[in-house]
Amino acid sequence: MVHAIQFRGSPSGEVIQTSFNLPDIQSDEVLVRVTHSGLCGSDIHKLQLPLVLGHEGIGIIEETGSACSRLRVGDRVGWGPLNSTCGTCEMCTIGKDAYCPNAKMYSVEGYDTQGSICSHAVRKEQWLFKIPDAISSADAAPLMCGGGTVWVPLVEQCKPYERVGIVGIGGLGHIAIQFAAKMGCDVVVFSSTDDKKEEALKLGASEFYATKGVADYSQLHVSKPIDRLIITSSAKFNLGLFYPVLARNATILPLSVDGGDLTAPYMPTVGLGHSIVGSCICSRYPQNKMLDFAARHQITCMVEKYPMTLAGVREAVDRLRDGKMRYRGVLGWEY
Amino acid sequence: MVHAIQFRGSPSGEVIQTSFNLPDIQSDEVLVRVTHSGLCGSDIHKLQLPLVLGHEGIGIIEETGSACSRLRVGDRVGWGPLNSTCGTCEMCTIGKDAYCPNAKMYSVEGYDTQGSICSHAVRKEQWLFKIPDAISSADAAPLMCGGGTVWVPLVEQCKPYERVGIVGIGGLGHIAIQFAAKMGCDVVVFSSTDDKKEEALKLGASEFYATKGVADYSQLHVSKPIDRLIITSSAKFNLGLFYPVLARNATILPLSVDGGDLTAPYMPTVGLGHSIVGSCICSRYPQNKMLDFAARHQITCMVEKYPMTLAGVREAVDRLRDGKMRYRGVLGWEY
Repeated sequence: MVHAIQFRGSPSGEVIQTSFNLPDIQSDEVLVRVTHSGLCGSDIHKLQLPLVLGHEGIGIIEETGSACSRLRVGDRVGWGPLNSTCGTCEMCTIGKDAYCPNAKMYSVEGYDTQGSICSHAVRKEQWLFKIPDAISSADAAPLMCGGGTVWVPLVEQCKPYERVGIVGIGGLGHIAIQFAAKMGCDVVVFSSTDDKKEEALKLGASEFYATKGVADYSQLHVSKPIDRLIITSSAKFNLGLFYPVLARNATILPLSVDGGDLTAPYMPTVGLGHSIVGSCICSRYPQNKMLDFAARHQITCMVEKYPMTLAGVREAVDRLRDGKMRYRGVLGWEY
Repeated sequence: MVHAIQFRGSPSGEVIQTSFNLPDIQSDEVLVRVTHSGLCGSDIHKLQLPLVLGHEGIGIIEETGSACSRLRVGDRVGWGPLNSTCGTCEMCTIGKDAYCPNAKMYSVEGYDTQGSICSHAVRKEQWLFKIPDAISSADAAPLMCGGGTVWVPLVEQCKPYERVGIVGIGGLGHIAIQFAAKMGCDVVVFSSTDDKKEEALKLGASEFYATKGVADYSQLHVSKPIDRLIITSSAKFNLGLFYPVLARNATILPLSVDGGDLTAPYMPTVGLGHSIVGSCICSRYPQNKMLDFAARHQITCMVEKYPMTLAGVREAVDRLRDGKMRYRGVLGWEY
């Protein structure tokens, strides 16, 4: 029996440390000793739940169930929010398994055993990903959810000869800039202030526009229209705000987690032939391709490192909640 | 010089008849003797403008300009709202010429010469379409705008093995049902009442649902989820209304002309991976393919025929404005 140290939310919203006896693994499960975990904005949304935080886990396999065949003890693996999918529904059989209606998603299930801000986790072998040797664990953690989330719209919706706009430079945006640039796209970044301009250009953007205080985006004087717009910022706005800088037949990809309604001007959307495409996390096939791509192109995440201690987790949570994280917090037992 | 009889809108919204001396045609223009014209909902929106009504024209060429090479005197041709495009911009060179930013669109230009509810029109050869012999002129007229408008989303977004929902059975919807059925799709129709159920099934629908008074569409008990939803009704609503009947990764295609904002629930759109795809009229390549397809599959439009007289036009306008037209009004000099 493994005594796991875990960091959980609590009704007051304060992070607490608990000790928990993990159950024996089932035949299709794996015991992972966690080494690193990313901290994602959606963890902040769940701070008042008693679940073990974290869904961007990296760790070393310590034990595999009798039915596991792909992974071995000692393998370095990573995981995102999904723990299992059915493998037989239409979404699974078409390779869109992230949309499996029978998916078991961490935070809805597996409260006590599947988080990644902890010492050990029990996960299904099915949704664990081998991490290529060329990617450090600190770089790999943010790829498990944030990286997969921006990868799908980029590879499905963007051509290498197109101008891709990235709105927001946070955990998702700073990875999206690198992926898009390495795919050969012309990358244009929109951020509220000039604060991150230098870093955006270094990550691969060719142009940068600060939008704060600009009511009419035609006044941004964007040099050429944007073909595909990936919105990673958490602010929700009428999508028409960006229409003055879009090409005809543009695609808009809102990726952030938010409530309420999505709004866009009706007739310009129809008349200009724009598409608004929802996309959520990443299925297994593209997730593996994303990891290969990141390894080949030496994608590095810009992370702030915090020790996996109560003080460390609390500090990282505070910084993310205050909008000060640049760009992804990663907790590690070695820090 | 040709004295054209024309039917125009007027500031009071009443249709009036005028006589107009058409100018001599330019080298790239064609003089058409109009035989038929469809009456589209967007004509109703323009009744207070002094333009010649109609943008679903069918006629016989009486004269061609010196630079015309494709069409000849005596050809039966049709046209929609577009009169010319530049031929050199990105949209034109990618085959999306309907989105040409330099397009000359009837109702913005060509007030006096390009309408189709009249005796003669002057049009560019470039955007005139030869009508296949197998299609009657009464059937061809509604295809020129309405047919093209529903054709593009069907061929671009729908697979023959998918369930395609058609919302609304009017001028557009009743053509969409036939196209989708002949493409092999499983066609599901949503209409406010059961009034048009029998006709919808005869046109090729396999299922029909009346939505009036149903607040929660899960209560429609649709037999299987809808993959692609084509909205031809003029009512604007939060797209979330239909989410309970959609498959994951569904595509929603709003086609009607309307103002205000398009709204959809934010997180379900992102989380379920739905796409909202704007689409407007039809480029030349797909328009020609649509006409071929309609001829091969004997697509017939359900039309109410009115004489091309002041009384006939006024009667058709009144009927369309009152929502009583079943399903497309066609005016003809021979009626």
